[in-house]
Amino acid sequence: MKAEIIAVGTELLLGQIVNTNAQAISQKLAELGIDVYFQTVVGDNAARLRQAIEIGRSRADLLLFTGGLGPTQDDLTKDVLADYLNRKLILHEPSMKTIEELFTSRGMAMVESNRRQALMIEGSEALHNATGLAVGNALKADGTLYMLLPGPPKEMKPMLEGPGQEWLRSMLGDEKPLFSRLLKFAGIGESNLEAKLLDLIDGQHDPTIAPYAKEGEVSIRVSTKAANAEEANAKIDATVDLIRARVGEHLYAQEDIPIEEQIVKLLRRSRRRLASAESISGGLFAELVTNVPGSSGEFAGGVVTYTNAMKNKLLGIPMSQLEGPDAPGAISESTAKLMAENVRLIADADFGVSLTGVAGPAEAEGKPVGLVYFAIAEKGKETVVHTATLSGGRSIIRLRAVKAAMYRLWQALKE
Amino acid sequence: MKAEIIAVGTELLLGQIVNTNAQAISQKLAELGIDVYFQTVVGDNAARLRQAIEIGRSRADLLLFTGGLGPTQDDLTKDVLADYLNRKLILHEPSMKTIEELFTSRGMAMVESNRRQALMIEGSEALHNATGLAVGNALKADGTLYMLLPGPPKEMKPMLEGPGQEWLRSMLGDEKPLFSRLLKFAGIGESNLEAKLLDLIDGQHDPTIAPYAKEGEVSIRVSTKAANAEEANAKIDATVDLIRARVGEHLYAQEDIPIEEQIVKLLRRSRRRLASAESISGGLFAELVTNVPGSSGEFAGGVVTYTNAMKNKLLGIPMSQLEGPDAPGAISESTAKLMAENVRLIADADFGVSLTGVAGPAEAEGKPVGLVYFAIAEKGKETVVHTATLSGGRSIIRLRAVKAAMYRLWQALKE
Repeated sequence: MKAEIIAVGTELLLGQIVNTNAQAISQKLAELGIDVYFQTVVGDNAARLRQAIEIGRSRADLLLFTGGLGPTQDDLTKDVLADYLNRKLILHEPSMKTIEELFTSRGMAMVESNRRQALMIEGSEALHNATGLAVGNALKADGTLYMLLPGPPKEMKPMLEGPGQEWLRSMLGDEKPLFSRLLKFAGIGESNLEAKLLDLIDGQHDPTIAPYAKEGEVSIRVSTKAANAEEANAKIDATVDLIRARVGEHLYAQEDIPIEEQIVKLLRRSRRRLASAESISGGLFAELVTNVPGSSGEFAGGVVTYTNAMKNKLLGIPMSQLEGPDAPGAISESTAKLMAENVRLIADADFGVSLTGVAGPAEAEGKPVGLVYFAIAEKGKETVVHTATLSGGRSIIRLRAVKAAMYRLWQALKE
Repeated sequence: MKAEIIAVGTELLLGQIVNTNAQAISQKLAELGIDVYFQTVVGDNAARLRQAIEIGRSRADLLLFTGGLGPTQDDLTKDVLADYLNRKLILHEPSMKTIEELFTSRGMAMVESNRRQALMIEGSEALHNATGLAVGNALKADGTLYMLLPGPPKEMKPMLEGPGQEWLRSMLGDEKPLFSRLLKFAGIGESNLEAKLLDLIDGQHDPTIAPYAKEGEVSIRVSTKAANAEEANAKIDATVDLIRARVGEHLYAQEDIPIEEQIVKLLRRSRRRLASAESISGGLFAELVTNVPGSSGEFAGGVVTYTNAMKNKLLGIPMSQLEGPDAPGAISESTAKLMAENVRLIADADFGVSLTGVAGPAEAEGKPVGLVYFAIAEKGKETVVHTATLSGGRSIIRLRAVKAAMYRLWQALKE
């Protein structure tokens, strides 16, 4: 099946927003085995939208619209498509009721234009909007499939994942639904991971193994069609075992979570707590860990000691360690060790993690940009210090340093 | 002039990357007064790319391509367009020389396919690639304008900003170049800012005033055509004065920098230093400040005290203040004040900033999600504590809290 994604919205043509919907929809269609040959963006203009529909129909079996389902006069997608198909717009009563109830519960009078969000093309299937008011539409007309999704990603995504996907599968005539599992990796680059799995990726067709590139993350999606979840899991497990045999030490999760979330889970499971002492990363490690909901029980606290005076004052690191002709300096293996150990003791935590290094733009202590030391101090164990030479701009070096430290912490935790 | 942006690349259709180029090009064309009516994405496929060119030519005066200029057989843009226009591809000698020199300097043998990057369509103008190897192309043929830009954003953007923009202006027949200035605001929402400037935005056409929406930022671009920078600056200054008279207390910069960068600049100028004590924001304040290059002189350090024990241990806040039936608690005005004052003293800094509150998902100390206290302690001055009730998910509340604190810090600094 050939598909075209048509995003409707003048704000896209003005560059006010980026078309993340096209990416999300493309990923989903790829997962379903539907080929996307074109993505089109058109403004809130009836004539040009109609033209896009005509062109799309001539070259695709499925037109997937996003945007233009809202209450204003600019929201034209349903009107234009209904007109093109010579069909009427009818009211979807359940959606209308939801809208009315919302306004009543807020003690507000409903503006008439809100009725527009409950309209649907005659003969179409309503797609429930779990996170907004505009109902989605799906229909088949004259051999072409049409799906209308809302524009805001927080409405579009749940609709596509839920009723949208279900409808697409029914149109594909799939007897067996598709099951997939995301594998998340740390401590290994994307190209390196791909190289190690290349023959599996290329040679295996059920389940399929597809690399998934996303900023700062390395993931693989394993997908298969199966009669039920049990059958699918058995097939996927067998493939995961093949992958694990090659790169298992980097596989930190079989669901879409960042490594810091896995770390918080492992800490919680073992009733242990973490503290951090950061120099190069300036609080990024603490920020990512505490951004995990409910992490307050697992994160005791952290310090951002940018200056030597603060390393001395907050962490009790002797000035003789930090300054002077024979001192190892702030950016050194021994300082990283002391930072991790001392913050662990101060916070009365089970793990202490430290990061010190040079993020740039200039070198420091005569040490080059990209040099990083990080240490993992664990209660009752020998502290381990790692070193890395990272490339990239200032923010990238900081992020890579933090992710490298998290990888080592995760390794220590899962033992 | 009507334009269409055609992004070429199968990775876009698979959802592997998001089409940020379309946004960047759309913004630039809007700035130049060129209307974008369609954006198209097509894969690395000659027949479909040719079809996209045909459709684009029928509805636009300018076709702006991005992607497909690289060395591989998948990189088809120049070939397909040359074929469509019945023109030959010729070698651009200066680009070829650059490529050869690069390989020589690396001591590597040049792969023949790299020659492809130096090819250009006969009769076109070469657009210099300052950050990569593939030369850009610009030409007018049978009344249509064509511009070919590389796909990687770090090559595309400099080419568009530099020779691309220059060529477009010459085609527009502009005698006067366009000058513009970005104004950055803090402590005010986008819709509120627009409401206060609505008559100026709608009524004024030289310079133009255009709101610029970007995640978590509120900006306005003031643009005018002028004979030279001096004339432009005088016109823009007069418009900025009009804006300042209404919302001047929120205008923190007349260039594209985040508020933390302005804070670091003001600290540097007055030779003062900053320290932070964070609870709700978990290190985000420190992370953003230290992400400003060269901020190490202005940021003394920070603590992330997630637990009461750490607030007591690192900041010396009495446990009687934090716990017990009559204690104000960790999330309180008086604790925010103590955190800011104590971290300032410990770090021997001029400013201490603190943040405490409830980011969610659950309430804490019986206080609701979104409640935030933040304090600015300044050497020799009375500490000021602010409170805010913020909405959004966990990450949004954290970011908004930090930005609100930065706004107040900036106000204190500029006095």
